Amino acid sequence: MTVSSLDVVGLGNAIVDVIAHAEESFLEQRGLNKGAMTLIDAEQAETLYAAMGPGIEASGGSAANTMAGIASLGGQPAFFGKVSDDQLGAVFAHDIRSIGVVFDGTPADDAAPTGRCLVLVTPDAQRTMQTFLGAAAQLGPDDIEENTVRAAQYVYLEGYLWDPPAAKQAFIKAAEIAHDAGRKVALSLSDPFCVDRHRAEFRDLVDGHIDVLFANEEEIKSLYETQNFDAALQQVRGKCEIAALTRSEKGSVVVAGDEVHVIDPAAVDKVVDTTGAGDLYAAGFLYGLTHGYGLAQAGKIAGICAAEVITHMGARPEVSLQELVKSKVG
Amino acid sequence: MTVSSLDVVGLGNAIVDVIAHAEESFLEQRGLNKGAMTLIDAEQAETLYAAMGPGIEASGGSAANTMAGIASLGGQPAFFGKVSDDQLGAVFAHDIRSIGVVFDGTPADDAAPTGRCLVLVTPDAQRTMQTFLGAAAQLGPDDIEENTVRAAQYVYLEGYLWDPPAAKQAFIKAAEIAHDAGRKVALSLSDPFCVDRHRAEFRDLVDGHIDVLFANEEEIKSLYETQNFDAALQQVRGKCEIAALTRSEKGSVVVAGDEVHVIDPAAVDKVVDTTGAGDLYAAGFLYGLTHGYGLAQAGKIAGICAAEVITHMGARPEVSLQELVKSKVG
Repeated sequence: MTVSSLDVVGLGNAIVDVIAHAEESFLEQRGLNKGAMTLIDAEQAETLYAAMGPGIEASGGSAANTMAGIASLGGQPAFFGKVSDDQLGAVFAHDIRSIGVVFDGTPADDAAPTGRCLVLVTPDAQRTMQTFLGAAAQLGPDDIEENTVRAAQYVYLEGYLWDPPAAKQAFIKAAEIAHDAGRKVALSLSDPFCVDRHRAEFRDLVDGHIDVLFANEEEIKSLYETQNFDAALQQVRGKCEIAALTRSEKGSVVVAGDEVHVIDPAAVDKVVDTTGAGDLYAAGFLYGLTHGYGLAQAGKIAGICAAEVITHMGARPEVSLQELVKSKVG
Repeated sequence: MTVSSLDVVGLGNAIVDVIAHAEESFLEQRGLNKGAMTLIDAEQAETLYAAMGPGIEASGGSAANTMAGIASLGGQPAFFGKVSDDQLGAVFAHDIRSIGVVFDGTPADDAAPTGRCLVLVTPDAQRTMQTFLGAAAQLGPDDIEENTVRAAQYVYLEGYLWDPPAAKQAFIKAAEIAHDAGRKVALSLSDPFCVDRHRAEFRDLVDGHIDVLFANEEEIKSLYETQNFDAALQQVRGKCEIAALTRSEKGSVVVAGDEVHVIDPAAVDKVVDTTGAGDLYAAGFLYGLTHGYGLAQAGKIAGICAAEVITHMGARPEVSLQELVKSKVG
């Protein structure tokens, strides 16, 4: 990558989503963990794919969705992630570049195919995700280009990276480069079960190693093992510079030391598929932070972006977020 | 295939759609033929794909969409079409089988990848299609299983098959088997430019070799080289047993000898993407014909199916058409 200045560089699992409708009973019969992201192996992926209904394929991956959102807002993002030299890898690379994200990842040259996430959308618009990481799990420290990280105001890391060991090393390397260069580090907790898997390490990260934390209500409650949102809020306050906590239809709360903003949700006509809501919230918020907006305004932009992505299938914006935000915020 | 009785067996290009939003200016700059399907080669497909925005991938192909619609209505369809042994071929096979269409096509074993159609949806919801046929063009007479055709009440042929020479031979073979077995043959004219390419042969087909014809207003006017819908209607009347002529927001007209039905369109809240409207009209109509409905009722069911598919991106139904039709027709 040859970039002189970037707003945000994201690190994440490079995934193509396979999105299909499913009844509640389909999840129950298979013991799937509704609303969560579960890692599965190639064989499980094949079995589930055979059982599920017709789907649509769309580029996904949590941090990649966030970078796509920043590009749609008119920002300058880059992305590190690993795809294979196959059709879905070409789809992933096309989609992320065509929306304006800098993505140079050389395809993995061994056998693992491009990662995919089988997304089952139930009639209540909730999404349940089963991920086969494939090539995404091969992201490692060697894939992190120092100059790119140094060129970005923020490095953005998805908690999911803590699952594959090499990706975790890439995560740590990127965070160290960023802090050495006087840049900021942002983290998304990704998923309450991901927090379950890595609670102690995530708590340590949040306490002094992260500048901006993104978490939804379930994730932050899981991190501090409490059933009470406010209790979790009090715990996280002061640990990182900024925590942006999302609460679905209740909006979000942004905490930064003494500053606390309770932000109403943006209006939504009809929720179709909640996939990508958190990813796009992070996109709006990071865009706001890197473009001179205050915390309340950044939270408002974030809510508008999240509201757009839940009105349709798929985890990336279908309209120009730059124009959408301009029409609502000015 | 081991099937004892089928409603309809479809023959068509097996295609995965890559659907993206595009501005009018994008089409103009590239001289793309708005609203039409244009065949492109591998190199053109690569160039256009690189220039277009992020997309979603969804199984498509005109006749394949129609068979998917019949399955969604609760009918018994099968499909003949050619995919490659690659990821998009697996996606195509999964989607069509998982909705309930019998599909046994052995993947093509040479180098052509699974065919794809780059669909550009403009802000007015019109779709402009550029198709790289790939493996689809390798469908030939050897792929047509006589027993399957004999088992189906109708064989349904898309006009697009007239483009690749081997597929045209497959088309003719299937039609001959069907008629020898006392079955019916239905044809969709597919596209006004497809009619331009094959006008004389299509006129000959329609005049005595086809039982049911599907055409939209532009196609039937192109077939008879007239600017007047009613003039085209008078021309086609009596040539084939039934002609179902669709007119977008004006509904459709069904002509069968002395019988003529002018059918109002189904209500649509908001048109998002017109891809698949004609395909799903044909699905509803053929379902009606094979399930004891009269022509007017079959046309009404057809309109309901077409109305569903244009309210979202992609050319296959997102809801159970069986339940939708039950709620509207009873």
